Amino acid sequence: MPDTPLACGLDIGGTKILAQAFDPADPSGPALEQRVPTPDGDEGLLAAAVSMVRELDEQARDEKLGRIRSVGVGVAGLVDRHGALRFGPNLRGIVDVPLRDRLAAELDLPVVVENDATVATWGEHRAGAGLEVDDLVLVTLGTGIGAGIVTRGLLLVGANGFAGEVGHMVVDPTGPRCPCGRRGCWERFASGSALGRLGREAAQAGQLGGVVAEVGGDPEDVRGEHVTNAAAAGDEGALEVFDDFAWWVALGLANLGNLLDPQRFVIAGGLVAAGEVLLEPVRRYHQHLLFASERRPAAEIVAASLGESAGAIGAGLLSVEG
Amino acid sequence: MPDTPLACGLDIGGTKILAQAFDPADPSGPALEQRVPTPDGDEGLLAAAVSMVRELDEQARDEKLGRIRSVGVGVAGLVDRHGALRFGPNLRGIVDVPLRDRLAAELDLPVVVENDATVATWGEHRAGAGLEVDDLVLVTLGTGIGAGIVTRGLLLVGANGFAGEVGHMVVDPTGPRCPCGRRGCWERFASGSALGRLGREAAQAGQLGGVVAEVGGDPEDVRGEHVTNAAAAGDEGALEVFDDFAWWVALGLANLGNLLDPQRFVIAGGLVAAGEVLLEPVRRYHQHLLFASERRPAAEIVAASLGESAGAIGAGLLSVEG
Repeated sequence: MPDTPLACGLDIGGTKILAQAFDPADPSGPALEQRVPTPDGDEGLLAAAVSMVRELDEQARDEKLGRIRSVGVGVAGLVDRHGALRFGPNLRGIVDVPLRDRLAAELDLPVVVENDATVATWGEHRAGAGLEVDDLVLVTLGTGIGAGIVTRGLLLVGANGFAGEVGHMVVDPTGPRCPCGRRGCWERFASGSALGRLGREAAQAGQLGGVVAEVGGDPEDVRGEHVTNAAAAGDEGALEVFDDFAWWVALGLANLGNLLDPQRFVIAGGLVAAGEVLLEPVRRYHQHLLFASERRPAAEIVAASLGESAGAIGAGLLSVEG
Repeated sequence: MPDTPLACGLDIGGTKILAQAFDPADPSGPALEQRVPTPDGDEGLLAAAVSMVRELDEQARDEKLGRIRSVGVGVAGLVDRHGALRFGPNLRGIVDVPLRDRLAAELDLPVVVENDATVATWGEHRAGAGLEVDDLVLVTLGTGIGAGIVTRGLLLVGANGFAGEVGHMVVDPTGPRCPCGRRGCWERFASGSALGRLGREAAQAGQLGGVVAEVGGDPEDVRGEHVTNAAAAGDEGALEVFDDFAWWVALGLANLGNLLDPQRFVIAGGLVAAGEVLLEPVRRYHQHLLFASERRPAAEIVAASLGESAGAIGAGLLSVEG
C-alpha cells in the first residue's frame, strides 16, 4: 500500500529525540524508528527534526509502506497553543522557538507541537493503558514529574497550553528547595531524583547496607535505580524507602484525584520499571489520602503500557486527529 | 409573555436553600426568589425543594411571567453523575439521596443536580465574572474551599462527578488536622475559618489590639470577619494577618494554575467582601509562586460578580443547557 498516509511522531527529550513513522489507523502496529542525541541550540534541534522526518519518509517510500503526511512533536517544556516552545529547562540554549511554524515551513506538512507529557498522555489514551478511558491523568515519574490530562475524551491543555505542570505543585512549603525557586514541590518528593535522595538519606542512616556495598561503599553514590532494583529483589531497607516514597506519590495523586476525579491514573516514566513494588503501596496510600474515599470509588492506578514510544505515538496521532 | 419557559435554580447550602426562577435567555435579568432554612433529613429537604419550585411556578403564572420548564439544583456535597447526593458533610441526616430522580418524579420536569461550586462556576461563566472565558476556575473561599472548573467552555465534573474538591488538596502534610481525617488540607490555611484561626493566633500574640477590644477583650472570640473588617479599615495588624492568609490562598491557586493553566480565577464566597485587600496580595504572591511565571502569563484573579445568586443562576441555566 504505497499510498498509505503515515503519521510521524517525534519525542524531543533532554537527552535524545525519538522519531517513529506509522499508520495512524494502527498505532500499535509496526513503526519505522530513528533516534539521535538531542543537539544543543534551536537551529541544531530544528535541523535534526527535519532530517529525521525526511529519512523516515524516504525509508517508508523505499519499503513501500506509504508516505508521511503529517508530523506531531512532543517536547519537554512549556509549549504554547501556537506550537512554540517557550521554555525547556532541560534543552540547552533553546528558548522561544516557533517549532511548529518552522517545521511546517521546512517540511511542507501539517505539524502539531505539544508538551511531551501531553503527547504521551494522548498516546496511552488512544493506544495504551488509557484506551477507552475518557477521564484520565497520566503522571510521568522521571527526573521530574510531568502530567497530561484527558477529560471527556479531550486533552486539557489550558488557556495557554501550559497545563499539567504537576511537578511544581507545592506539597510542603517548608520542604527542600526546588531549582524552580520554590520549596517543597511534589517532584522534590516523588520523582526519580527524589527516590535517590530518600535512598541516600536511608543509606547514611545505615538502612541500606546491601545497596551501599553494591555501589562501592559510599552512601552518596546511591541513586533511585539502585533503590528500585534492591526493592524489586526484596531488600527490606529498600522496601522501607519505597514505602515512604510511595506515600509521597500517593499524596500528589490524591490531590489530583480530589481536583479532577479521573477514572484512571496511568503512571509512566522510568520508575514504572518497579512495577507492583511501587504501585501496590501507592494504591493503598491513595485510597487513604483521597477525600471521602469511603463514599466514592478511588481512581484505578496502572502502569503505562507503551514505554518510551508513548510520546512519539501520541504526537503522531495528534497530528492526524488534531 | 405567559408562555415564556422559565428555568428554576435551587442552591442548597448547609444553612439555607435559595431558589430563583428566571428567563434563561436573560440570566442577569429579574428573577422571582424564595429562601428557606435547610431542613434536616432527606424527606424534609425534598419536600422543601418541591414546594419552593411549585410556589415560584404559581407566582410566575400569576404575574404572567411564564412557567417553569426545568429545574437545576446545586447542593453542597459529593454529587454523582446521576444527580444523586452521595455525601453532604454540612447537611444533617442526608446521605445517598437520588435527588435528581426524586425531584423529577415529583415535579414532572427535567431536573439536573450538581455540586454547589460546580453550578456557581457555571453561573459566573455564563452570566458573571467568567463571561466568555473558556478556561476558568472558580474558587469559593467560605467555611471551607470549593471549586469548579471550566475547560474549553465545558464543565469538568470528572469520571464520577466529584471533581473540584480543592479544599482537601494537602499543602502541608505536617499542618493542622482537618475534620476530613488528613493534615494540612488547603482549607485549613485559606478558608474563612482559617482566617479566623490566623486572627486568633495574632490576637494571642498581641498583634490585634483593636480587633480584640472590639470583640469584647477575649482573643478567642476573634473570627475571620473581624479580621476582614479591620483590614478593610486599614488596621496594620489585621493587614499583616491578611498578608499571611493571602500567601496561602495564592499557594493553592498556583498549584491549580500549574495543573490547569486557566485564563482566569474567579474568587467567590464570603471572603470576597474583602475586595482588593485580599486580591492584591493574592495576585502578587500568585505571580511569585506560579512555575516559570517569568516566561508565561499568570491567570487573572478577579472577584465573582453574581454574589449569592451564582449557584441558583448556574443551576437554572444548566437545567436548560445540559
